[in-house]
Amino acid sequence: MQNALFYTRCGVESAASVVGQMERKGPIGACFDLSSEDDLFGQKTWEKAESEMQRLALNTALAKKGLAEDAPEIIFSGDLLNQCIGAAYGLKDFPAPYFGLYGACSTAAEGIILGSLLVTGGFCHRVAALASSHNCTAERQYRAPVEYGGQRAQTAQWTVTGAGAFLLSDAECAVSVRAVMPGSVVEKGVKDVGNMGAAMAPAAADTLLRFFAASGTSPHDFDLIATGDLGYEGGDILRDLMRLSGVELGDVYNDCGMMIYNRKTQDTHAGGSGCGCSAAVLASYLLPKMERGELRRVLILGTGAMMSPQAIQQGEAIPAVAHLVYLAGKGVE
Amino acid sequence: MQNALFYTRCGVESAASVVGQMERKGPIGACFDLSSEDDLFGQKTWEKAESEMQRLALNTALAKKGLAEDAPEIIFSGDLLNQCIGAAYGLKDFPAPYFGLYGACSTAAEGIILGSLLVTGGFCHRVAALASSHNCTAERQYRAPVEYGGQRAQTAQWTVTGAGAFLLSDAECAVSVRAVMPGSVVEKGVKDVGNMGAAMAPAAADTLLRFFAASGTSPHDFDLIATGDLGYEGGDILRDLMRLSGVELGDVYNDCGMMIYNRKTQDTHAGGSGCGCSAAVLASYLLPKMERGELRRVLILGTGAMMSPQAIQQGEAIPAVAHLVYLAGKGVE
Repeated sequence: MQNALFYTRCGVESAASVVGQMERKGPIGACFDLSSEDDLFGQKTWEKAESEMQRLALNTALAKKGLAEDAPEIIFSGDLLNQCIGAAYGLKDFPAPYFGLYGACSTAAEGIILGSLLVTGGFCHRVAALASSHNCTAERQYRAPVEYGGQRAQTAQWTVTGAGAFLLSDAECAVSVRAVMPGSVVEKGVKDVGNMGAAMAPAAADTLLRFFAASGTSPHDFDLIATGDLGYEGGDILRDLMRLSGVELGDVYNDCGMMIYNRKTQDTHAGGSGCGCSAAVLASYLLPKMERGELRRVLILGTGAMMSPQAIQQGEAIPAVAHLVYLAGKGVE
Repeated sequence: MQNALFYTRCGVESAASVVGQMERKGPIGACFDLSSEDDLFGQKTWEKAESEMQRLALNTALAKKGLAEDAPEIIFSGDLLNQCIGAAYGLKDFPAPYFGLYGACSTAAEGIILGSLLVTGGFCHRVAALASSHNCTAERQYRAPVEYGGQRAQTAQWTVTGAGAFLLSDAECAVSVRAVMPGSVVEKGVKDVGNMGAAMAPAAADTLLRFFAASGTSPHDFDLIATGDLGYEGGDILRDLMRLSGVELGDVYNDCGMMIYNRKTQDTHAGGSGCGCSAAVLASYLLPKMERGELRRVLILGTGAMMSPQAIQQGEAIPAVAHLVYLAGKGVE
């Protein structure tokens, strides 16, 4: 087997995000493009709201560049819902061929990896990658409807209501995807669905260590290394795992699930999670920082916990995956 | 938007299938590689059995060529289960990076398309693509546990217990993937989950018409055009839809869901369905026919119905997708 590090030449042409009220009220809330007052986005069910968020995110990313609905040649998308209906229903009116993905909360990174490979390979000029999650659809499906008011563990994360859309292109762009490294499925026996950061951290460490080894880089070579949604608990575990392998992450490490909520004033416990977490934070907070030159070399590590409620009921542990994307600003060699 | 027809250079190096007893007793039952007497494959639950089928299918495809577990550089896989646990759990012990897919019953074709693009683009030497379904996991999840003995409509299809694995490679092979065309999401208002062939036929027609137009071919140019699992009902509708567009499919058209069961002696109504249907039929019946030179030019059209039980309960129609793969035997120009 090869090390699965692929160097890419692919620009990030446009990106957009759609979020809920919790995210709007968080520390980076002003950055997001769209939100709705009741998190329903004019729909009658939470599931339809999540589909609408995907549609709005892609439309907004296209509109920012004055592009029409038929501009993407391929769409990659997914979400956490059973049979990924958030994506399939939300994007059904776009004419482009559609590849449905299931990477749990790593979906945005998975789509960006596949999209940038198709652009780099000369197969497409422009590809769209999306992902979404909605707190109310995820809680009902994975745990209990939010109306039940169930208690949550301090290690549990809060599923982000959010969608992010990315347009990847062979045009010259302010930010480009320079390398990608998909992750393997890693399962270290963690069975606690109230602590998914712990289940995902070993997958993140696995991909990150492979990346440093294959690329000959170390944390100092980057301005930011951001995991998708390990949260405070999983983030600490990742630091420990990396330290055991001789790699000190230091100040360059952060996590999208830590960035999106205020730990003191928003009662989200271990931080944000969900496909929409890294998608929205990357689209509307990190990419604009890169465009402004505040960040030049960034590693995004989308992390996903691949269990289902049924697998857990049957006594299985939580397999996880972590997909890495290396983004660089203009002028970075 | 482009027409999304991609010409590929990618060999089908090996393939293998694992099926249940119904499939073993069908008209092409002798072709499949492995089966288990109780469809449990030594596991305690149907879900774990489906995961085990994926593991066995990939191991068998590798063993046919004397390849080790770490031979694939990338794995694409998916299934029908919530959060695609059949694939993630079944393949977690293989070291290759893993891309989870959700394309419903089009998953095998979706994986073959993405895998052959990565091989054609020079990113990988060898990629694995898999898909699976299990009658007992699918019935419980989508309808009711099989023990209930629920009555089925005559237009309903029977979910195949099956898994198929494909190794795609840049080596010279007896059969190669010559072109691929991913499908768009098509939804024509069909809401009857007891007639998914009707929901999927318009997606199949959409991709097939685009393919003939973009490639300048017609049905006569192929020895076989096989849809994944439209079944008898959807297959007839596809013929009608194509006829309305001036294309007579004629004798070259067949459907994997029609091939796998005996319509007279096996009580499966409108034919087979499920991700494992086209995966197992292609891996163990069609590819060997191509290797023997009995078929030279074959179009496989993986068809998927992308609804969830919850989407249907909320009044939504069934969106569908159809992904096309053009396979050619040795010596075909």
